[in-house]
Amino acid sequence: MSKHVVILGGGIGGIATAYNLRRMDKNLKVTVVSGRPYFGFTPSYPHLALGWRRFEDITIPLGSLLPKHGIDYVPENGERIDPDNNKLWTTSGKEIGYDYLVIATGPKLVFGAEGQEQYSTSVCTAEHALELQKKLEEFYRNPGPVVVGAIPGVSCFGPAYEFAFMLHYELKKRNLRHKVPITYITSEPYVGHMGLGGVGPSRRIMEDLFAERSIRYVSNVKITKVEPDKVVYEDLNGNTYQEPCKLSMLMPRFMGPDVVASAGDKVANPANKMVIVNKCFQNPTYKNIYGVGVVTAIPPVEQTPIPTGAPKTGMMIEQMAMAVAKNIVSDIRNSTDRYVPELSAICIADMGADAGFFYARPVLPPRAEVKFGKGRWAHLVKSAFEKYFMWKIARGNIAPWFEEEGLKIFFGSKGVVLCADCSGAPGQAC
Amino acid sequence: MSKHVVILGGGIGGIATAYNLRRMDKNLKVTVVSGRPYFGFTPSYPHLALGWRRFEDITIPLGSLLPKHGIDYVPENGERIDPDNNKLWTTSGKEIGYDYLVIATGPKLVFGAEGQEQYSTSVCTAEHALELQKKLEEFYRNPGPVVVGAIPGVSCFGPAYEFAFMLHYELKKRNLRHKVPITYITSEPYVGHMGLGGVGPSRRIMEDLFAERSIRYVSNVKITKVEPDKVVYEDLNGNTYQEPCKLSMLMPRFMGPDVVASAGDKVANPANKMVIVNKCFQNPTYKNIYGVGVVTAIPPVEQTPIPTGAPKTGMMIEQMAMAVAKNIVSDIRNSTDRYVPELSAICIADMGADAGFFYARPVLPPRAEVKFGKGRWAHLVKSAFEKYFMWKIARGNIAPWFEEEGLKIFFGSKGVVLCADCSGAPGQAC
Amino acid sequence: MSKHVVILGGGIGGIATAYNLRRMDKNLKVTVVSGRPYFGFTPSYPHLALGWRRFEDITIPLGSLLPKHGIDYVPENGERIDPDNNKLWTTSGKEIGYDYLVIATGPKLVFGAEGQEQYSTSVCTAEHALELQKKLEEFYRNPGPVVVGAIPGVSCFGPAYEFAFMLHYELKKRNLRHKVPITYITSEPYVGHMGLGGVGPSRRIMEDLFAERSIRYVSNVKITKVEPDKVVYEDLNGNTYQEPCKLSMLMPRFMGPDVVASAGDKVANPANKMVIVNKCFQNPTYKNIYGVGVVTAIPPVEQTPIPTGAPKTGMMIEQMAMAVAKNIVSDIRNSTDRYVPELSAICIADMGADAGFFYARPVLPPRAEVKFGKGRWAHLVKSAFEKYFMWKIARGNIAPWFEEEGLKIFFGSKGVVLCADCSGAPGQAC
Repeated sequence: MSKHVVILGGGIGGIATAYNLRRMDKNLKVTVVSGRPYFGFTPSYPHLALGWRRFEDITIPLGSLLPKHGIDYVPENGERIDPDNNKLWTTSGKEIGYDYLVIATGPKLVFGAEGQEQYSTSVCTAEHALELQKKLEEFYRNPGPVVVGAIPGVSCFGPAYEFAFMLHYELKKRNLRHKVPITYITSEPYVGHMGLGGVGPSRRIMEDLFAERSIRYVSNVKITKVEPDKVVYEDLNGNTYQEPCKLSMLMPRFMGPDVVASAGDKVANPANKMVIVNKCFQNPTYKNIYGVGVVTAIPPVEQTPIPTGAPKTGMMIEQMAMAVAKNIVSDIRNSTDRYVPELSAICIADMGADAGFFYARPVLPPRAEVKFGKGRWAHLVKSAFEKYFMWKIARGNIAPWFEEEGLKIFFGSKGVVLCADCSGAPGQAC
Repeated sequence: MSKHVVILGGGIGGIATAYNLRRMDKNLKVTVVSGRPYFGFTPSYPHLALGWRRFEDITIPLGSLLPKHGIDYVPENGERIDPDNNKLWTTSGKEIGYDYLVIATGPKLVFGAEGQEQYSTSVCTAEHALELQKKLEEFYRNPGPVVVGAIPGVSCFGPAYEFAFMLHYELKKRNLRHKVPITYITSEPYVGHMGLGGVGPSRRIMEDLFAERSIRYVSNVKITKVEPDKVVYEDLNGNTYQEPCKLSMLMPRFMGPDVVASAGDKVANPANKMVIVNKCFQNPTYKNIYGVGVVTAIPPVEQTPIPTGAPKTGMMIEQMAMAVAKNIVSDIRNSTDRYVPELSAICIADMGADAGFFYARPVLPPRAEVKFGKGRWAHLVKSAFEKYFMWKIARGNIAPWFEEEGLKIFFGSKGVVLCADCSGAPGQAC
Repeated sequence: MSKHVVILGGGIGGIATAYNLRRMDKNLKVTVVSGRPYFGFTPSYPHLALGWRRFEDITIPLGSLLPKHGIDYVPENGERIDPDNNKLWTTSGKEIGYDYLVIATGPKLVFGAEGQEQYSTSVCTAEHALELQKKLEEFYRNPGPVVVGAIPGVSCFGPAYEFAFMLHYELKKRNLRHKVPITYITSEPYVGHMGLGGVGPSRRIMEDLFAERSIRYVSNVKITKVEPDKVVYEDLNGNTYQEPCKLSMLMPRFMGPDVVASAGDKVANPANKMVIVNKCFQNPTYKNIYGVGVVTAIPPVEQTPIPTGAPKTGMMIEQMAMAVAKNIVSDIRNSTDRYVPELSAICIADMGADAGFFYARPVLPPRAEVKFGKGRWAHLVKSAFEKYFMWKIARGNIAPWFEEEGLKIFFGSKGVVLCADCSGAPGQAC
């Protein structure tokens, strides 16, 4: 009888895993469970907030998409997992049995600073981005100071940098920049750290990018409170400061959603409810449960005075999805081959007309290779990649041969690596 | 009857205002009162000191110049202003009535460190520059350590940087550089601050320019005393240091001259005797008194541990002169149109063969735009601008159309902006 | 009767002096005394360690070389000098009388950290480099963390930087870089100081080169102890840290060898047993004794919190050798002309495919000129220079006219300068 793989989540990680499995094994039954009725290209949510993209440009409805590519779709969120009995219940109480479960829900957002959810904005979901878009229209009519930043515990700093740079660009175009002091306030020990201890000379690059744009920055502080007209933060000595603002965009902290927690402490890391995985992104206790994407528990690169975490970028998530699909197919075929994602990352911080480009292989040190640059080309690459990725999603093929070859040629990147032993923390070398 | 505008001062601000008025209203009577018998191109005084320019290259006698362009000239300094009776007395006791008074005297130099006037040199006036030229001739025969810098309260740091770079260049040409340790000692909290909180990545650029030239720098200190063979300075903890030197060039602090003080506390800022102005550069109490140039009271960009002020560059002064001329003409014509100078600035720090280029719009943050660069082109632009400006002064036209257009095309700069409300500090956005 | 010049040492300094003397005065008797039977191109020892050069590529046996060029060779080390009687004894007890003695032995290496000699490695001699080559072969099979650095008192930091950069390059080629955290630990107050207070923007350049290569660095610390699996160091507050490593390469401190000390306190600086010289590199007490190369006592450029010394690079040593040869010949010819080496330096830090380039004239501040750069060209220049230098050594001519001309044309460097007065510390301007 053909095996049933259930995938919780319909974002980059979930869809990529589903497409990979579909392509690798025609006999598998693959089901995607996702209450969010569309696939969204997360990296372009800051662009959505600024009105540079429409919602339709960067989303595709799952209801029509998945069945067309031979994947079952359940338009509901997961509610509870029973890992001992290989069962899952959705919010409506529907019971779904599985042979393999891939958890790719993405994070639950934690707006950890007092007042953050009410008085600040975010670009972490399409809904938040659309709300911010509306607030910006009002803000342009009556501008004032802006605060962009990240609260303690954040692992995803890229969109904060991007939003600061892109807002600067938009304000200049609207001839409003001279009325808007912009301040970047972060839990990173220094700008350019990005939860990664920096990537190459990213500290110097970010300091220069901020200086060139007259954006002030404050690092190594905890944002504790957001009020309608200010952001309150604290330094390591407990001194409190206020930064007045008419608008703020602050990255939230991420944790695992409740459905992960429902699976118990052997699946959900007690600290943050993220999925416990080994370096093959397989749960060490329940070998038929895998994690993909932001919901997986990856150790931080280094301890920082104020907590920060390691980001999981789109490229890392695609590698996880590829490794997990290969591992499930290997297991079904009784092969002992196991695959580990390389966890290398290309990260492009858009700035409107140009962009910053960073490449790290692997993301978690020691790193074999770091590249970086800046220019109009990087902005174009980012825009082109969005179109290309949306086309791949619509077409049902997440990893055509030429893409992997390209990465090998340009960056010596292999994507996933055959590995003798899956034990050990994710990110460890084989 | 035609109105009489009296302009105190024959520098960039005074002459530019006079020419603008002459061009805008043929019926006005315009009088320039200036004890200094020539117009001098201040930005080239460091070049005069180094013997790279002759006095005749960068000055024009006012006595022949002004009458030729339909402007009356009184070759005396102002002594006292009676703002309640619209009268002014010169040093010889001559009484001059006015309908409008434009104060554009430039600063009174304050050599605030003990011994600074006797033992140090300056490039703030042509006379000082010529004196320094003589001292340098002697110094080249018997070289030793040099200190360049700025005492507490300085608002004009550019010439100090320029002099350090240009002296380095001259010493290399004379094959003396290896005998001359050069040290830059400043009240700025860091090099590249320039009284402006930095302009783009000016800190990094200046640090590099100094490092490349083996010029040592000490920042965030107060120079307290100059002796024939050393400069004494103090850090924030009160520790005292000595820097031996055979020659020093230290920027003085600026305040308003006595003639401004004579107009009373509603015209002269009690703290520094500079002219109190609103954002249209009009005195808020005596509406027929205006200020133009370095003598106007502009608030500092930010508080620094050791006091510094915001510079007023040539381009800012030309914008003030344009706004003030437009405002006077509007007032005469009973128009309610008022104009505010944008206070954007191009600043070129000459280094002999190349130069550093900075552009800030506006100078006072938040800034819409910052550009910067370095190269031989910037040196050529500076030299060309000097010739062009001297030609404009000789020709009697301070702002031909193509110059303003050029600024609009290259920098999006408008020079002056129509403004509904003049109230508020100079530099505030309209 | 023809004079006899004895040269202690067969490295760059000794051979260059011998060749210069031979070329300048055909009647002189010139003897080189060196227990090491070959000339070695020291700057390429790091390349030898990495297997990028063979021993034969960068060494030439002295036994066949020197007699061919009319220079006597004694294949033994010096044991004792009697400066009062112009005599020298070799290790076998052979007595050699001299008219002039040139001490160019190179340094005695001091492995000042506990365990450094047993558990760490060095690239200061060909033997050490070959030993390190073997250890690296083993390391590649079983890689782990690496520490590269310099203990307190080091004056030669270049090879440590070079080794870190080159090892990074080699590990990448072997696809091992992601398994090897590299840490640079140094007594310099900041990276890029190099015992020289930095050379131009060397601090920023080195910080960037390390960041681009994901090499962590710790500066301003004392390495106190090396164990088989870790390096122990202490900061200025006395806190102790451990850096785990499988392999370490730590630069030793330099002092004068015992044969110099045997000449007494008027020849050997009591502090470090190096040869006391004036600015003509002549001993002030025994006027017929000269010093050339690393064995000469040059004062440090500046006091650093943890002691460091000023490096003596190959180019400086060639200049010393030229000045000393000219001074000896002048003295023989009863001329009062004396020559001082300019002590300018080109220093190229190889990084595998490209290299960093630094030029300082002179090395000891105040400097007239500093140049720097980075690129493939610098790597090629370094490789080409090695071949060229080995060819010069084989050919017996250390300073053909076109080389000196080239330096003059490109860098305004004169190599040696005619000087009225030899008194004063080496490095002082004439």
